[in-house]
Amino acid sequence: MGINAPLNRKLRMALVGGGQGSFIGRVHSIAACLDNRAVVTAGALSSNPERAKASAPDYDIAESRAYSSYQEMLETEAKLPEDERIDFVSITTPNHVHFEVADAAVKAGFNVVCDKPMTFDLDQAETLLKSVQESNVVFAVSHNYTGYPLVRQAREMILNGELGEINAIRSQYIQGWLRTQLEAEDQKQAAWRTDPSKSGAAGAFGDIATHAYNLGRYMTGLLPETVSCSLKTFVEGRKLDDYGTAIIRYESGALGSVTASQISHGRENDVEIEIDGTKGSLKWRQENPNEMIVRQNGKPHQIYTRDPNAPFTNGSGAAACRLPSGHPEAFFEAFANVYSSAFDAMVARAAGETVEQRDTVYPNVYDGVEGMYFIQQCVASSSQDAAWLPLKHAAARK
Amino acid sequence: MGINAPLNRKLRMALVGGGQGSFIGRVHSIAACLDNRAVVTAGALSSNPERAKASAPDYDIAESRAYSSYQEMLETEAKLPEDERIDFVSITTPNHVHFEVADAAVKAGFNVVCDKPMTFDLDQAETLLKSVQESNVVFAVSHNYTGYPLVRQAREMILNGELGEINAIRSQYIQGWLRTQLEAEDQKQAAWRTDPSKSGAAGAFGDIATHAYNLGRYMTGLLPETVSCSLKTFVEGRKLDDYGTAIIRYESGALGSVTASQISHGRENDVEIEIDGTKGSLKWRQENPNEMIVRQNGKPHQIYTRDPNAPFTNGSGAAACRLPSGHPEAFFEAFANVYSSAFDAMVARAAGETVEQRDTVYPNVYDGVEGMYFIQQCVASSSQDAAWLPLKHAAARK
Amino acid sequence: MGINAPLNRKLRMALVGGGQGSFIGRVHSIAACLDNRAVVTAGALSSNPERAKASAPDYDIAESRAYSSYQEMLETEAKLPEDERIDFVSITTPNHVHFEVADAAVKAGFNVVCDKPMTFDLDQAETLLKSVQESNVVFAVSHNYTGYPLVRQAREMILNGELGEINAIRSQYIQGWLRTQLEAEDQKQAAWRTDPSKSGAAGAFGDIATHAYNLGRYMTGLLPETVSCSLKTFVEGRKLDDYGTAIIRYESGALGSVTASQISHGRENDVEIEIDGTKGSLKWRQENPNEMIVRQNGKPHQIYTRDPNAPFTNGSGAAACRLPSGHPEAFFEAFANVYSSAFDAMVARAAGETVEQRDTVYPNVYDGVEGMYFIQQCVASSSQDAAWLPLKHAAARK
Amino acid sequence: MGINAPLNRKLRMALVGGGQGSFIGRVHSIAACLDNRAVVTAGALSSNPERAKASAPDYDIAESRAYSSYQEMLETEAKLPEDERIDFVSITTPNHVHFEVADAAVKAGFNVVCDKPMTFDLDQAETLLKSVQESNVVFAVSHNYTGYPLVRQAREMILNGELGEINAIRSQYIQGWLRTQLEAEDQKQAAWRTDPSKSGAAGAFGDIATHAYNLGRYMTGLLPETVSCSLKTFVEGRKLDDYGTAIIRYESGALGSVTASQISHGRENDVEIEIDGTKGSLKWRQENPNEMIVRQNGKPHQIYTRDPNAPFTNGSGAAACRLPSGHPEAFFEAFANVYSSAFDAMVARAAGETVEQRDTVYPNVYDGVEGMYFIQQCVASSSQDAAWLPLKHAAARK
Repeated sequence: MGINAPLNRKLRMALVGGGQGSFIGRVHSIAACLDNRAVVTAGALSSNPERAKASAPDYDIAESRAYSSYQEMLETEAKLPEDERIDFVSITTPNHVHFEVADAAVKAGFNVVCDKPMTFDLDQAETLLKSVQESNVVFAVSHNYTGYPLVRQAREMILNGELGEINAIRSQYIQGWLRTQLEAEDQKQAAWRTDPSKSGAAGAFGDIATHAYNLGRYMTGLLPETVSCSLKTFVEGRKLDDYGTAIIRYESGALGSVTASQISHGRENDVEIEIDGTKGSLKWRQENPNEMIVRQNGKPHQIYTRDPNAPFTNGSGAAACRLPSGHPEAFFEAFANVYSSAFDAMVARAAGETVEQRDTVYPNVYDGVEGMYFIQQCVASSSQDAAWLPLKHAAARK
Repeated sequence: MGINAPLNRKLRMALVGGGQGSFIGRVHSIAACLDNRAVVTAGALSSNPERAKASAPDYDIAESRAYSSYQEMLETEAKLPEDERIDFVSITTPNHVHFEVADAAVKAGFNVVCDKPMTFDLDQAETLLKSVQESNVVFAVSHNYTGYPLVRQAREMILNGELGEINAIRSQYIQGWLRTQLEAEDQKQAAWRTDPSKSGAAGAFGDIATHAYNLGRYMTGLLPETVSCSLKTFVEGRKLDDYGTAIIRYESGALGSVTASQISHGRENDVEIEIDGTKGSLKWRQENPNEMIVRQNGKPHQIYTRDPNAPFTNGSGAAACRLPSGHPEAFFEAFANVYSSAFDAMVARAAGETVEQRDTVYPNVYDGVEGMYFIQQCVASSSQDAAWLPLKHAAARK
Repeated sequence: MGINAPLNRKLRMALVGGGQGSFIGRVHSIAACLDNRAVVTAGALSSNPERAKASAPDYDIAESRAYSSYQEMLETEAKLPEDERIDFVSITTPNHVHFEVADAAVKAGFNVVCDKPMTFDLDQAETLLKSVQESNVVFAVSHNYTGYPLVRQAREMILNGELGEINAIRSQYIQGWLRTQLEAEDQKQAAWRTDPSKSGAAGAFGDIATHAYNLGRYMTGLLPETVSCSLKTFVEGRKLDDYGTAIIRYESGALGSVTASQISHGRENDVEIEIDGTKGSLKWRQENPNEMIVRQNGKPHQIYTRDPNAPFTNGSGAAACRLPSGHPEAFFEAFANVYSSAFDAMVARAAGETVEQRDTVYPNVYDGVEGMYFIQQCVASSSQDAAWLPLKHAAARK
Repeated sequence: MGINAPLNRKLRMALVGGGQGSFIGRVHSIAACLDNRAVVTAGALSSNPERAKASAPDYDIAESRAYSSYQEMLETEAKLPEDERIDFVSITTPNHVHFEVADAAVKAGFNVVCDKPMTFDLDQAETLLKSVQESNVVFAVSHNYTGYPLVRQAREMILNGELGEINAIRSQYIQGWLRTQLEAEDQKQAAWRTDPSKSGAAGAFGDIATHAYNLGRYMTGLLPETVSCSLKTFVEGRKLDDYGTAIIRYESGALGSVTASQISHGRENDVEIEIDGTKGSLKWRQENPNEMIVRQNGKPHQIYTRDPNAPFTNGSGAAACRLPSGHPEAFFEAFANVYSSAFDAMVARAAGETVEQRDTVYPNVYDGVEGMYFIQQCVASSSQDAAWLPLKHAAARK
């Protein structure tokens, strides 16, 4: 069977951002190409036209398709014959640029994979959603932790009722790298993430709490009702939050909490989630992603390993594995799974099928809207003494 | 050197509660006697006079000192010659009986070790505090997790500033044993803990969140300002909370969270605390108590083991150890450390010294008051839609 | 029900060794008295008569029963009326003194609990075995790791066939404290353990490999056939081995390995055992003793916790617990379990029953003989270029 | 800077093996292409000419370069112009075919990446070594665990003397998948691995003990002297060993052990290594590869995480990372590191430089020879009652 059957060819990827010195651009290209289903074909790799051109050889992009700007890229590519032009655009710029690139790409009819948080604010997100709805493109958002096989395994278990009714979700994302005012030392990653004009209304809550919140939503499908949030800025001189906790009431009566920190010494990317149901509980931790603990009263604790061949592994879990158990898979492979699920949809669309945009395995534009709403409401709640504010957006997926 | 020098004799313990079928009475007697510093001498082991008598042989209590009631015991013992009568009373009854026994014992001049939560409500606690202040006895409350060597090690490290200024405290106590309505099945432990007339105003928050909160207070000395709490009762038919999260604002600007659950399948006594300071962070977990992780950006994560002979172990940590590293110590030894620290004070008092009652290594009546205030304010906050309520009690220790 | 029914009194313990500065004497007294079934009544606490007397108050031993020598003790106690004299003697001296004390105590009709390795050499062990067989006393050897609840749980599971036929046993005991030539620095514990005139023919293999080997024998009952052993002395100037590995062929065809180290930096008392059977495998580690992993192909890994109330816990496992799951038990409690099982036998003997001496829950004189044979054959094999030597002793228990 | 500067183009890869149903062929192609430094250009994907052709689209290999046999491939490719023909051949067939393909490829002047064990027996390996020495090609062997960043970090630390003199190496590779006679059930992976005509003289020892042994050699550079090995076949009807332990004496006086199992229920790919030096010890485990524990007496245990930006990370460790700490890397990335290091050499060779063949970061033909010698001597030792046999091969790297 050929690659991306019935297309039988690789998908052509265009990268926006990812120029020299970028980290996340390289992550996207590795993840997208891991399974040999895509090839980096074009790029607008930097807002600086010279650097954009100079970075092309890093990705083996032909000179002719190394564009000076995303506008030029979209315009030129749209005019290429169908069997040459790009299939999708991956957007890996700082947050404040996401919207204009994404909206233009969508309107030009290209599929999009966009970094999270999806836009600068909720207004942009809602506008973008409308564009996507109209254009019928595939639009994925890189909530990459949803790509871990055991996250998908857990999701299917929960949606199937194996944990019973869900009562509680506790998730956290703990980092330490912004413990000092790195942004004052001209560290590029720190600089834009702590700058309200680039990062948006939130710091830690925009950058990482969104992941922790999304993970609970993705795994359980519980719909939120209200949120009460307390944000803090512990590092002097910083303009955005670097720590916070949100309490979430779900419509079903379940209670959730989300904590994010960028100021916890020595902590790396400690994403952890615990879910309590009436029939079982589970715990998963991103830094050791090939294991998940499932517990039931009266039974030994069960360590589910990432094992595509085990009877206890369900369809979602197995489909997300490339290796047998014991040979660990990790960040890149999870990221690649987000791409891979989006590719399935892109191939279907290319084959003329109507594609689902909302209830998808990969995180999509609806999740992106919800993430922006989460950020907005958390910041608003925090500024109102942790008042309870609505959290359910009309675009929320189940 | 003799036992309890300069007393050179064992302390005489009286047990209230602990009759046949009791669990916690046995824990107290094992812990108190572990180091051969005390001997169970008298008891009012049950509110049922016959069972009280019948249980005496289990503890090797002479028939003559197996009393039918605590009142009889206090009265009789008080009249015995000083070299015969009991030194202290350990109270291991259900919560609603603590106060009357404790207050009577204190007024009779006996030292007391009382289970937590200390009383049924805050009023009782404040009344008891006054009695203790007047009587000058030693009064310990069994927040037993404070007795773990690495908890004391951490406390000294933090009070010495080794973690810098503390920004965040996250603690939780997760259990699963009340996942079903055990109280409807005539399970004794479940029955009184879920009965508002015996347990007090809170369920999980009275029974276990108090421990998680106390641990943070004990280890950091941070003074609380306000609390916002969300309690839930997930098991149908239950009268008290079995789940909840409290957010705590400390006077210093630090932010804390306390989560307690009795409904998390398969979870046992999962007490965990994470503390973030400007110079370092730490994490400790009760179920694996001989290890603590201390982290600092740029350094390998440090696993502090319980090692009385290591250069990195401080005085508090070493004093709480009985064994060299690698031979684990656990629950009983931690509990015994609470007793042992209280014994030091009892011996000093017996030797005629004035003893400190508030700023002690062992948790004391002030901590007991604070615990009751925590319960009261959490319940009140929860009933007011998680409103922020004051949490600093005048009796709070630093 | 009274203590030690139908005796209805505590057992009277005599301690040999354990004088000021001793570590293991205190461990024995704490373990023996933990459940209130015994009381330290007499002692010959040091080979130095003055120190022997001076140490008595530490244990609350009456002056009249603080003896200058074990000979004096045995002679005097034997003459006391039955309702006063000691029930058993705990021997906590360095290895080379075990035999004479143990043999004399046994011949005087007292039960004995003896530290391991049981004697200085195999001859002594075999002689002692005869004395025990003739005297009909209870004789326990402190292979204390056999007292951990999950070790006993595993043993019952294996003897019941739950892991199928056993193919492989891998055990190790890794320490680091003798990494440098501590014995040259007048460190008492190091001095006698590295001195062939006090410790016997082996260093690490006598002190700790015996535990690791015994654990496999105790848990599986597999009878050994031959051993090939390679011992090393890595620390310059040391007279005995501080590292080594033995390969063991069992009669059933199973293969085993035992590794012991005293020179592994930072390692504490890392006793670990892995057992492979045709139906399942397990792994247990002493430094985290409240968990055991049981695995079967095709199933999630099962973490058995020490849980006396769980359906998966068998009789042996539950009987060895004092606390519900989640409140960890550790070294002292395991040690106390060895005592407690021996106490059961002592009480039966005192009640006039004939007691089993070989097939017992507690490690006994037969195990002691086997341990000495293990040491002898390992040292001999190592000196013959790791030749295969017989390992099955006629006294081996099943 | 272009890809593979100064070549500034991707390397062209030819795959031998890897046809439909293959697992390891896909692993090689993903690993080789992960960093965009290579592209699969040609293939002889199966010994069945039809399947060879039919599998080509899976890899996006043009029909014209999907060959019916490796012979045809080598012959045809050798005639292509330099700027079209393949740069290297990856051999992913069963063991017994490695030699003929590898030797032919080497003689045709192509670089080679060969699965391990490198050949069917030692003779073949020594012959191949000569071919490589004469041809001057780059020849890598897929001892892929050497590619893990923390393995390389440890190697550099040890070679720099940070652990002092090495005394002991304990490694093991524990699996459970061959617990039953899978080969009788027509399971392809099991069939050839347990067939002496395809797998060679050893089963578990050829397939996985070689990895565990190689890891110790790679990390420490210690030269072996002699080996004593005990192999077992526990599963009835199996023709090759499925369990065994080897004891290794190193020239320096160090002692090592290697254990391999394929019959341990539920164990996956549990490769673990512990190394004891006079200044420190370390432990690393493949199933949790982003952590390594380094210990020194008197200090907290140090968890080194895979952290390219940490001061404690050395050049080798950092060079092997693609992601910052906390975002785990795993099997594919380690495998890709073996390729990447070999690519560096291939690029240098293509640029006309003389390349080192023996003392390389990637495992090479010398390591392959040593691996075959290890297998041969272990099997021979086992058949001679675990006799000590020489283990140092003249080709051993330091």
